[in-house]
Amino acid sequence: MTDVPVSTLVELVGADVVSLDPDVLERYRWDNAEESGAQTPLAVARPRDAAQVQEIVRWANRNRVPVVPRGAGSGLSGGAEGLGGAITISMERMRAIQIDPRAHTATVEPGLFNAEVKAAAAEYGLWYPPDPSSFEICSIGGNIATNAGGLCCVKYGVTTDYVLGLDVVLADGTLVRLGGPQIKDTAGLSLVKLFVGSEGTLGIVTRAILRLVPARGEPSTLVATFDSVENATEAVVAIRQVIRPAMLEFMDRASTCAVCDYSGEDLDRDAAAMLIIQSDAPEPVRSQEIARMDEICRTHAPIMTRVCSGAEEGERYAAARRAVFPALGARGKLMYGDVGVQIPLLPRLVNGITEIGERHGMDVSVCAHAGDGNTHPNVVFDADDPDAEERATTVFHEIMDLAISLGGTITGEHGVGRAKRDSLPDQLGPDVMLLTRRIKDALDPDGILNPGVMI
Amino acid sequence: MTDVPVSTLVELVGADVVSLDPDVLERYRWDNAEESGAQTPLAVARPRDAAQVQEIVRWANRNRVPVVPRGAGSGLSGGAEGLGGAITISMERMRAIQIDPRAHTATVEPGLFNAEVKAAAAEYGLWYPPDPSSFEICSIGGNIATNAGGLCCVKYGVTTDYVLGLDVVLADGTLVRLGGPQIKDTAGLSLVKLFVGSEGTLGIVTRAILRLVPARGEPSTLVATFDSVENATEAVVAIRQVIRPAMLEFMDRASTCAVCDYSGEDLDRDAAAMLIIQSDAPEPVRSQEIARMDEICRTHAPIMTRVCSGAEEGERYAAARRAVFPALGARGKLMYGDVGVQIPLLPRLVNGITEIGERHGMDVSVCAHAGDGNTHPNVVFDADDPDAEERATTVFHEIMDLAISLGGTITGEHGVGRAKRDSLPDQLGPDVMLLTRRIKDALDPDGILNPGVMI
Repeated sequence: MTDVPVSTLVELVGADVVSLDPDVLERYRWDNAEESGAQTPLAVARPRDAAQVQEIVRWANRNRVPVVPRGAGSGLSGGAEGLGGAITISMERMRAIQIDPRAHTATVEPGLFNAEVKAAAAEYGLWYPPDPSSFEICSIGGNIATNAGGLCCVKYGVTTDYVLGLDVVLADGTLVRLGGPQIKDTAGLSLVKLFVGSEGTLGIVTRAILRLVPARGEPSTLVATFDSVENATEAVVAIRQVIRPAMLEFMDRASTCAVCDYSGEDLDRDAAAMLIIQSDAPEPVRSQEIARMDEICRTHAPIMTRVCSGAEEGERYAAARRAVFPALGARGKLMYGDVGVQIPLLPRLVNGITEIGERHGMDVSVCAHAGDGNTHPNVVFDADDPDAEERATTVFHEIMDLAISLGGTITGEHGVGRAKRDSLPDQLGPDVMLLTRRIKDALDPDGILNPGVMI
Repeated sequence: MTDVPVSTLVELVGADVVSLDPDVLERYRWDNAEESGAQTPLAVARPRDAAQVQEIVRWANRNRVPVVPRGAGSGLSGGAEGLGGAITISMERMRAIQIDPRAHTATVEPGLFNAEVKAAAAEYGLWYPPDPSSFEICSIGGNIATNAGGLCCVKYGVTTDYVLGLDVVLADGTLVRLGGPQIKDTAGLSLVKLFVGSEGTLGIVTRAILRLVPARGEPSTLVATFDSVENATEAVVAIRQVIRPAMLEFMDRASTCAVCDYSGEDLDRDAAAMLIIQSDAPEPVRSQEIARMDEICRTHAPIMTRVCSGAEEGERYAAARRAVFPALGARGKLMYGDVGVQIPLLPRLVNGITEIGERHGMDVSVCAHAGDGNTHPNVVFDADDPDAEERATTVFHEIMDLAISLGGTITGEHGVGRAKRDSLPDQLGPDVMLLTRRIKDALDPDGILNPGVMI
């Protein structure tokens, strides 16, 4: 790639936008997947508006230089990691937001953090529901690229359910405006939905119109522990039959112990499964829902159930769930899975993951958005031991194979990125991969958009 | 098309599947749009399973014969009307359904009616929310093709929000299986979402996995009338700020008068706007929500507001809203619009529609899913007067132009079909049309799938 005239890009959009500084390039090498294969990009562009994104993409298209769109770099699948010879286009400077308090929409640029959208909406008594655990450090653009989920999507849905409109820069630099502020729109193909979750492989989002809903109330929390994943799952199935909880999270024994070790929290280290369940309905329905879900848990042989006495105690348990990633991260390097299955198959998935970890002598634990059947198997390994990384990768792939064998998915909310690319054909099969490839080729014939991600 | 060897198709799949009987062909000429341009199909195929669909499509592909996929024929945009020289593939015989009461899914074939899916789910205490007004006579396949909405989608979302997986026969006869029973799945492009709303132009759905949710409670109903569309809209905006109602419907004066004339219902013929509003939250929150929404309506200068005394009275108003189409249909032939805008712009859309009707001396009325900004302007005309049909078409197109000028959509839930095809480029613009065309060409290079629909 030495003959690529990247200096012409600097001349075109300016040195304040395109950096070739080795220190800067190094900072954009990794995203939060921290894959050892991440490469140093050729240049890092930090455009200030859509017109600059178009200029950069047009240049890249003319010169057949790949581009890697990047949000906040908090992704866990390597979808935004650097690629040698490619321009990383970081959207961090595009952070405008406008709330329309009458249409109940937020028009946002992609670099804004999820938490900032929530905060801006809250000023008008409104709420943007999607809530990845990383909501304080992840960007809306990245959320759209991966169709991010979170804790409350068991009741409120995922990112795609809240995206009404998108501005997208295509591979040839054309900017298309898709959808709009209207809530229902079935004019033409569902292009907005196609771009959500496309991980920067079809275009670069420069603006989104998001749907906001009324702010919700303070949640109440119920905790239940079980001596088997089976009993916990049966409780989840029974709860979903009658109630839509606002949170329905799962921690296995290993996750629970990790959090106890890390934060000093006093949780039951012997329980095979802990469920953390919330209702956010208005009172008194909230208390009724919690009581009903408590009753359901009690009919599934729990070790104990506990209705939290107030918001503070409830938040302690929710915080324990969110502490799983930092707790494991304190132990070593982490490989983040997010396989999913239909809910009744959770025991086969979770117990199978545990078995895979044990068989390889690896530190593997599982937390899950149980109410959606979306699990996070986390593999901890010693970053300095190349043999450990290799074994972790083996475990990671065996877990994806297991999910596929159960008719499930290799990724519920993190995206395929580079980390899961090789497993995607095993899930989708050759015909769906061919269909995917035909759409990719139609929209990005020269393959300049995030090559190596997803396909 | 006389040299098309349609007899070879009959030989291939049998005369019980493919009919050339002129009486049968005539029955499949029209869908409920009843467009005068509808043509008699070359043949009508009524396959019994996906394999037969594949055989028919492979034959069509080999012989470059277009196919028109058809559900129950209840569509209002001409998307399933006959096309001379084409095979209409009616999915009416593919009606299998299987409820999984533990995964909370329904696996259905496309010919089943929406109401039948609801009924099958109800046996397990579950509910399939999408509820087009035609739910008793429309098929799930057609709902998926148009991304159908309905009355409750203001709270519960539209068809695409409930489709987890699809089996689709592509233009070359390949059957692909997309998505699955897992609730969250971001592996690969959002292909399920792309096919929902594609109106049979990208493939033919032969099976769908639908998400079910817990059955909801009996709704309570509030009615409010206003002497201007502006005041009614302000009430809608204010309600949406704090509550997600289960229904938020609008009828203009002309719609109200039509229903009074038709069913003898005693509604306020002088009110410019009537809102019919429901809550289905569990009690006592339901009563609280109704009281709060009543209070909001009262602060927007209503003529009157009325909290219905029970389910029976509430149902009378909901039935009045559903009676709009039959009431208008009793007067003459109907042209059904479904333009939408962001909610604050409803007065400009609704008043503009009334003005267009008056200017042309045509019988035009508006009912609307006001909580979604999705209106149904209905044009009544004398079917025997060709001049009237022409003027109705002019009105229909001026209404779409108005919606586009307000940044809205020509179709919120009925689809583009043939009736709105010529207006689609005005909404989407040349770049989005080109993008659409590239996807269409990638998936259906010979253009055999529902040609003339949408694009």
